[in-house]
Amino acid sequence: MANFQGDKQKVRQILDAVKKEGRTSLTAPEGKLVCDAYGINVPKEGVASSAAEASKMASSMGFPVVMKIVSPDILHKTEAGGVVVGVKNADDATTAYEQIIANAKKYKADAKIVGVQVQQMIKGGQETIVGAMTDDSFGKLVAFGMGGVLVEVLKDVTFRLAPATREDAASMLDGIQAAEMLKGVRGGKPVNREALQDTIVRVSQLVSDFPEIAEMDLNPVFASEDTAIAADVRIVVNFSPKAPRFRPDEKDVVTSMNRIMKPKAIAVIGASNEAGKIGNSVMKNLINGGYKGTIYPVTPKGGEVMGLQAYKSVKDIPGDVDTAVFAIPAALVAGALKECGEKKIAGAVLIPSGFGETGNIEGQEELQRIGREYNIRLMGPNIYGFYYTPSNLCATFCTAYDVKGATALSSQSGGIGMAIIGFSRSTKMGVSAIVGLGNKSDIDEDDLLLFFEQDDNTRVIAQHAEDLKDGRAFAEVAKRVSKKKPVIMLKAGRTAMGAAAAASHTGAVAGTDKIYDDILKSAGVIRANSLRQMLELSRGVPILPTPKGENVVIITGAGGSGVLLSDACVDNGLKLLKPMPEDLDAAFRKFIPPFGAAGNPVDITGGEPPITYMNTVRLGLEDDRIHALILGYWHTIVTPPMVFAKNMVQVVNEMKEKGKVKPVVASLAGDVEVEEAAEYLYQNGIPAYAYSTELPVEVLGAKFKWARAAGLLK
Amino acid sequence: MANFQGDKQKVRQILDAVKKEGRTSLTAPEGKLVCDAYGINVPKEGVASSAAEASKMASSMGFPVVMKIVSPDILHKTEAGGVVVGVKNADDATTAYEQIIANAKKYKADAKIVGVQVQQMIKGGQETIVGAMTDDSFGKLVAFGMGGVLVEVLKDVTFRLAPATREDAASMLDGIQAAEMLKGVRGGKPVNREALQDTIVRVSQLVSDFPEIAEMDLNPVFASEDTAIAADVRIVVNFSPKAPRFRPDEKDVVTSMNRIMKPKAIAVIGASNEAGKIGNSVMKNLINGGYKGTIYPVTPKGGEVMGLQAYKSVKDIPGDVDTAVFAIPAALVAGALKECGEKKIAGAVLIPSGFGETGNIEGQEELQRIGREYNIRLMGPNIYGFYYTPSNLCATFCTAYDVKGATALSSQSGGIGMAIIGFSRSTKMGVSAIVGLGNKSDIDEDDLLLFFEQDDNTRVIAQHAEDLKDGRAFAEVAKRVSKKKPVIMLKAGRTAMGAAAAASHTGAVAGTDKIYDDILKSAGVIRANSLRQMLELSRGVPILPTPKGENVVIITGAGGSGVLLSDACVDNGLKLLKPMPEDLDAAFRKFIPPFGAAGNPVDITGGEPPITYMNTVRLGLEDDRIHALILGYWHTIVTPPMVFAKNMVQVVNEMKEKGKVKPVVASLAGDVEVEEAAEYLYQNGIPAYAYSTELPVEVLGAKFKWARAAGLLK
Repeated sequence: MANFQGDKQKVRQILDAVKKEGRTSLTAPEGKLVCDAYGINVPKEGVASSAAEASKMASSMGFPVVMKIVSPDILHKTEAGGVVVGVKNADDATTAYEQIIANAKKYKADAKIVGVQVQQMIKGGQETIVGAMTDDSFGKLVAFGMGGVLVEVLKDVTFRLAPATREDAASMLDGIQAAEMLKGVRGGKPVNREALQDTIVRVSQLVSDFPEIAEMDLNPVFASEDTAIAADVRIVVNFSPKAPRFRPDEKDVVTSMNRIMKPKAIAVIGASNEAGKIGNSVMKNLINGGYKGTIYPVTPKGGEVMGLQAYKSVKDIPGDVDTAVFAIPAALVAGALKECGEKKIAGAVLIPSGFGETGNIEGQEELQRIGREYNIRLMGPNIYGFYYTPSNLCATFCTAYDVKGATALSSQSGGIGMAIIGFSRSTKMGVSAIVGLGNKSDIDEDDLLLFFEQDDNTRVIAQHAEDLKDGRAFAEVAKRVSKKKPVIMLKAGRTAMGAAAAASHTGAVAGTDKIYDDILKSAGVIRANSLRQMLELSRGVPILPTPKGENVVIITGAGGSGVLLSDACVDNGLKLLKPMPEDLDAAFRKFIPPFGAAGNPVDITGGEPPITYMNTVRLGLEDDRIHALILGYWHTIVTPPMVFAKNMVQVVNEMKEKGKVKPVVASLAGDVEVEEAAEYLYQNGIPAYAYSTELPVEVLGAKFKWARAAGLLK
Repeated sequence: MANFQGDKQKVRQILDAVKKEGRTSLTAPEGKLVCDAYGINVPKEGVASSAAEASKMASSMGFPVVMKIVSPDILHKTEAGGVVVGVKNADDATTAYEQIIANAKKYKADAKIVGVQVQQMIKGGQETIVGAMTDDSFGKLVAFGMGGVLVEVLKDVTFRLAPATREDAASMLDGIQAAEMLKGVRGGKPVNREALQDTIVRVSQLVSDFPEIAEMDLNPVFASEDTAIAADVRIVVNFSPKAPRFRPDEKDVVTSMNRIMKPKAIAVIGASNEAGKIGNSVMKNLINGGYKGTIYPVTPKGGEVMGLQAYKSVKDIPGDVDTAVFAIPAALVAGALKECGEKKIAGAVLIPSGFGETGNIEGQEELQRIGREYNIRLMGPNIYGFYYTPSNLCATFCTAYDVKGATALSSQSGGIGMAIIGFSRSTKMGVSAIVGLGNKSDIDEDDLLLFFEQDDNTRVIAQHAEDLKDGRAFAEVAKRVSKKKPVIMLKAGRTAMGAAAAASHTGAVAGTDKIYDDILKSAGVIRANSLRQMLELSRGVPILPTPKGENVVIITGAGGSGVLLSDACVDNGLKLLKPMPEDLDAAFRKFIPPFGAAGNPVDITGGEPPITYMNTVRLGLEDDRIHALILGYWHTIVTPPMVFAKNMVQVVNEMKEKGKVKPVVASLAGDVEVEEAAEYLYQNGIPAYAYSTELPVEVLGAKFKWARAAGLLK
């Protein structure tokens, strides 16, 4: 649904007045008026001047109400008999009005009576909190939590980008640990979810419409069976907010990124014949990597570099150049960058360090200014460069990399980039690209997402980040891209100690991890918990076909693995098909010994020959009620590891030909021969791990998480 | 301190009366009397027959009190003016007494007045819950949590074995998620911790003294600044509780286990010359494994088996036999076991399946009866056997295993046992023993703990279990053993789905995982989260020296690794030395480039030569304020992986000679050559991992967890 339209003019008037008075926060009545303008429930009130009006007013507010005499001459209202609480219906309101006026007159015959105030009574309910804040990276955020100790002690609060949709708001009610409380506990009634969602949506729209609202707190919001009413409103304003990071048009990003990542011609600024120099390593990698485009070495010496004609400046190069790789000292970068701009080069790959990361903020800002002026995009500075394997392109001083595949990876840090290269080579994980982002003076994670979104060579995107320079841009792009291709993120600096280390490492300002967690999740991004996990998911997720439903079945020769695999399913949000339909259970039983256990896990028992694994797995792939299989293998003489592996690949391929394509992963328990078998399975489309019951399930769980977020599971 | 002594006689009287009446629960007044007998605070009350007595009574209870007329002739006490609430001091109590009596006489002149009841008023405070329950595996447990939604919705509750000590009780107050609430939040005052601990201790002592108390609930217990008072008491009894599992005397266990695990002579029942038979595989493993004791093949055919004289029955064997390995069908086991008993063999290694795990409960119970009758301990049935490497003993039908080391492992499941063997061989993890426990008809985890506790060849004990047949015995033994040697446990069936799988696999009844979690932790056991983690900890923990304090320093060439390593420190409960003492910071700075970051992590930056790693690591080992080091290596041409590895081993050994022995772990980021370097480091006492920032920190964290629980850290 379209978001709510508030009375902007009214809010504008109030904020203008606050600004004029130089205040940084609103008074309580101002806060109430702002809420009224956006239809955010606060206790309703009004002044009636007749019994009929009081009755009508109370009816429109909803009962109960409290009624009070309004008279400049009566200060002690209760003493005067001028207050009636808990008025329950229209008739009682009429009676109460008359009684209050009569009492007032009796109390002070000549009192000037303005009327009777009718005010909605808040009837308890659950204490919740709805708030909004401004985050350096994500901009306006809306927050929701249970009031009191649950927020204060247990930090049980959840965030979304503002403005939030009704669906976002609904996911927030389900997204707190204490979600069950909203459904009614200890005999309590469930809260009115619509009303709470409505409050969240309206608050989020308000702060989005008025960027000067820096913080807003409705605390508490009493959520009852009927309604949600904010008992207290606090609004903090900031009339000179930070300018948002520049976001080029998405079409322009894609055009530039395609030129940069898939260049027809590439210049190496600082190319060198001297071994050990970065400019020499880059040249070697480009040439030996097998890049088929044109390579232009650039060096003040001119002449030849590695047999290619060298130029003294990019401006001397005869043809067009798409990408310039910088391998020169920091002090020379700005000058060369301007020349690249004049040459209309699309992107500069800034390997040199000595900028923001060493405190040279000005130097980096100079590069950013030049980049914007000449419309040249900057990768880095302080990076290892990048690889794009479909073009055999190794634009880096690291070792060459050539195992082609469907995963694109990036890292903010060079060390993590090297770990990506080592792991990828070691596990033969095919990659489409590995990109170093370093200081992220310009190109960052969302630019890469936009490129990889439309890059047919990439099916999965995995990113390591210490911060997101523009978390909002990332989340908005990721939300769309993740519907097409899984996006995996390792967000470093999760903890306070990690964030402190990131701040001193790249100047990354991490922000609250819970915000990252919620926003990444709501953008459909799979969050990796560790470096190794990011790498394992990058390897496994693209191999697995997309499941068509939620039903997972474990087929295992080792009962003990079945138990641990079941635990891992719960840990990774996977649903075992349970109870197993009777006919399916009977069908499995036909293949396994009488003392084996059907159900789920299907325990075929340890001593079985290859045919038992084959029969049960074939059945699992054939039956449409099953959507994914987890295999537990137990090494025996009867079914040796490689026999198992080859048979499984055979069955999976056989069923694939019949159109039965499902994700299958495997856990192998046994002596060292299982390692070769696991490798064979992995290379043939079945992510498999020796000595681990959790890794295969993590990979499968990630695929499901993605498919679920992308709306591909029923 | 010694636990509290309650008035047992009084409780016995009450319980006897309940038993006599055939009831299963106590009335509220009975519950209150039981509490009184054990000094558990419930609202105090008494009947005064004079103003002076009322005043004295109220003073001894503590104010405020509520006072009420006690008269069989006055039913409507309030109407009669017979109730005064909120009496604040001794004088007011005197006045209230007189007023109540006067009112009563005025209300009904001839009323018979018994006196005035004086009752302590409960003054709010935090709502908590103290309870006790009877668990099938752990026996009597005491529980503590915050009342209301925190227990009901968030399940924020913690358990300890009963009776609990004061220290246990203190750890419970700190052991809930909402622990901060007890310290006072939202301007509230902290609760009286002594009073709450006292309540926990007394409840735990009560249920321990009276096993027939099956459940006890004090809900709520109001914990205030002054005191803790149980407003409601519920006690459920069971006069025919389940008999506890038989626990032989610890000395007898050790004697038997030493004979079984380190036998001078071993019999193989069902020994065979026929390849493929289990009795053949066992013989081969014993002979080829290099076992130096005497091997007696037993087979009805007699003759020779693999060149050794065979016997038709163990009773025919001329010498003593310590251990008998069974490799015969299930149906023949009982008969052969009796003969073993008559031969005074210490233990039977029951490889055969076909007992409890296939539903043959009676068959298994028969074995248990024979075992008890003849005092022969049973390993299994349904196992792979065991390895004890110091004796070159492979009493199993699996492959032989010969990499000697200090870790003893066991598994409930055969498949997991095979994974242990494969991983151990692959990583060259030295082991002292690998033991299969299977159905655990007799020998279980605590028997193994008792053996490994006194086994000089074992320094670390790691166990995989699907249930603990006697959790109490395990926890009691583990609490002592873990002070000497790290005990690691992978408890499978953590989740509801896992527990269901375990139930159908080995009939294991898992119980609430939170109970396992709390009890294992309080017994000093390191709980592994996954199979691979159990294996990695088993490998790494025995290698690391024990730290002398909590201060960890990260030294890294890759800033990005530093961030992830910091996150991992938080995840694993490690404390970074922060802030770094000024002189130490300055000393580190001397060795690193000006743009490197000292502090912690010490970021030496990526381009540094080997000497920078050596200098900083040497300093880290030398300075007594640092207790452990985490190294982050970044692969460069300047410091290649093997150069780094060899230099690190050199520095660590050099400092070891000077008496500076500290745990050091390493994370290596780089191309595939880092794998060899990691292996070299690991083999030389520095647990090291390629492409992972979390695994080395998990290993170090486990060592710290152990050292902390064992009281070795200051």
